[in-house]
Amino acid sequence: MSEDFAEGAAYVRGRFVPFAEASLPVNDWGFTRSDVVYDVVHVVNGAFFRLPDHLERFQRAMDRRRIHPPETLAEMEDILHRCVALAGLADSYVAMVASRGRPRAAGSRRPADCENHFIAYALPWVDVVPKDVQARGAHLWIASTPRVPDASVDPTVKNYQWNDLTSGLMEAHDNGYDTAVLCDSEGFVTEGPGFNVFVVKDGQVLTPDRGSLQGITRRSVLELCAELGIPAAIAPVPRALLEDADEVFLATTAGGVMPVSRVGPRIMGNDRPGPLSARLKEVYWAKHAEGWHATPVRALVPAAAD
Amino acid sequence: MSEDFAEGAAYVRGRFVPFAEASLPVNDWGFTRSDVVYDVVHVVNGAFFRLPDHLERFQRAMDRRRIHPPETLAEMEDILHRCVALAGLADSYVAMVASRGRPRAAGSRRPADCENHFIAYALPWVDVVPKDVQARGAHLWIASTPRVPDASVDPTVKNYQWNDLTSGLMEAHDNGYDTAVLCDSEGFVTEGPGFNVFVVKDGQVLTPDRGSLQGITRRSVLELCAELGIPAAIAPVPRALLEDADEVFLATTAGGVMPVSRVGPRIMGNDRPGPLSARLKEVYWAKHAEGWHATPVRALVPAAAD
Repeated sequence: MSEDFAEGAAYVRGRFVPFAEASLPVNDWGFTRSDVVYDVVHVVNGAFFRLPDHLERFQRAMDRRRIHPPETLAEMEDILHRCVALAGLADSYVAMVASRGRPRAAGSRRPADCENHFIAYALPWVDVVPKDVQARGAHLWIASTPRVPDASVDPTVKNYQWNDLTSGLMEAHDNGYDTAVLCDSEGFVTEGPGFNVFVVKDGQVLTPDRGSLQGITRRSVLELCAELGIPAAIAPVPRALLEDADEVFLATTAGGVMPVSRVGPRIMGNDRPGPLSARLKEVYWAKHAEGWHATPVRALVPAAAD
Repeated sequence: MSEDFAEGAAYVRGRFVPFAEASLPVNDWGFTRSDVVYDVVHVVNGAFFRLPDHLERFQRAMDRRRIHPPETLAEMEDILHRCVALAGLADSYVAMVASRGRPRAAGSRRPADCENHFIAYALPWVDVVPKDVQARGAHLWIASTPRVPDASVDPTVKNYQWNDLTSGLMEAHDNGYDTAVLCDSEGFVTEGPGFNVFVVKDGQVLTPDRGSLQGITRRSVLELCAELGIPAAIAPVPRALLEDADEVFLATTAGGVMPVSRVGPRIMGNDRPGPLSARLKEVYWAKHAEGWHATPVRALVPAAAD
């Protein structure tokens, strides 16, 4: 592997480049209008997890926003494999991005006139919640900023419009918490910056039916619950239910199942991850090791012992 | 002036570069979280229009989002002058952008850990609504997508989160209209992609009090109305009032006062700009020629006759 790619590998404007060279024009509408969709898949032990599911969701997002880069979905898949292989990463955070781009003729203000383009990159794995915080359980702040309504911006189309989530995150940090969850204007729980939320109450697992991404890790958790005989559902989650939960955990591609030990001023259990959350986390990673939903990265040279 | 700067001049990462070289890393949070504020000022006949007002609004936006690049506001102002002078543009669209940037230590997910940075650029003038459309009056579509509520994303902090506006714009184009205006979920008129909206009814001028940027051109229009003795106010504007208006016009830095001749299926007046809108447009530009709110661009070499 080239030294240049050691910090990550990217694909931009039809070329593979070291990550440090991956950039975007400052007047790309993906930036100046946040007119862009994306997805993130992880690689663990040399294999993608649920790659077809991520590609399917990404295709749907591109269709919904009418962003159609020249690469086919099969070509995009090849590019993701190639980015990981170039970077030589057995554990990786892999992003796929489709941007509106810029108008073919300067001066147009019409989305349909733009040259859509595809960006991909593979970086060393980064957890949304650091591992030491995961071990003690995350401290979750219930933000005062309401989540943007689904009717204004569809949360199932994965997007970079994080202002409401960032406002919540800053509130959480101001108050000494690790991260935040947002409620909608009617007081129902939605999601946090980069993760879905689950509550456990009287042995039942619930995750919000609104204001949220249809997370692939969320889907994995629901599958694991079915397998383990734990009742689970996608349902309305009023804020009071979150505040009164027996356990809470978060789910994301960049972290898996992440237990929470505090919600606002409330300390749950023994200020440690609850038993059901801990079990789901353990099984989630154990099944990765067994090759669950795995797609081995092509042409990835196994690393020497390190 | 260097040939390289003929297409525009930019300032990124502390250096002046030809616009074609102005770029942003693909994992800058200004892109991946739309964690960025901006402002746009225009230059006409070698002078900025209301530059102090734009700088003041930009400073407020940076403060609200806690984005603080190393440059002082006075240094930013110098940089804007220098960009226009390098590009040699007597008429220019000038952008100032402050981005969250990236975490100083890879892996952090905390906004406070990021290296904020300033981007500026001067480009040849582009109208939001093409001049021929301005002459016949724009055809305005009332979008079905509701504007993101002020409580979720503050519209007075100028931002790139345009998904709701872009959805409205695509609807407008699908229906053969030039551009769109959005209402909030309660049915009050807000703004469109890049402009404020004004309605004229029974000789009175009204512009929405919610869901909107506090536009500098909007302020100019209100000042002109006061000067001309036309009653004008910032007030709630129900959708029905827009649909039943005598005249409608749009206001933006990148276009000034832009009359509308059709709102949805309704053709106003003679399918041409209304008299009050046309007068405000004329006075707006006439006062530019007189040096109203003008700040001459320093070190701009007057162009030869062309």
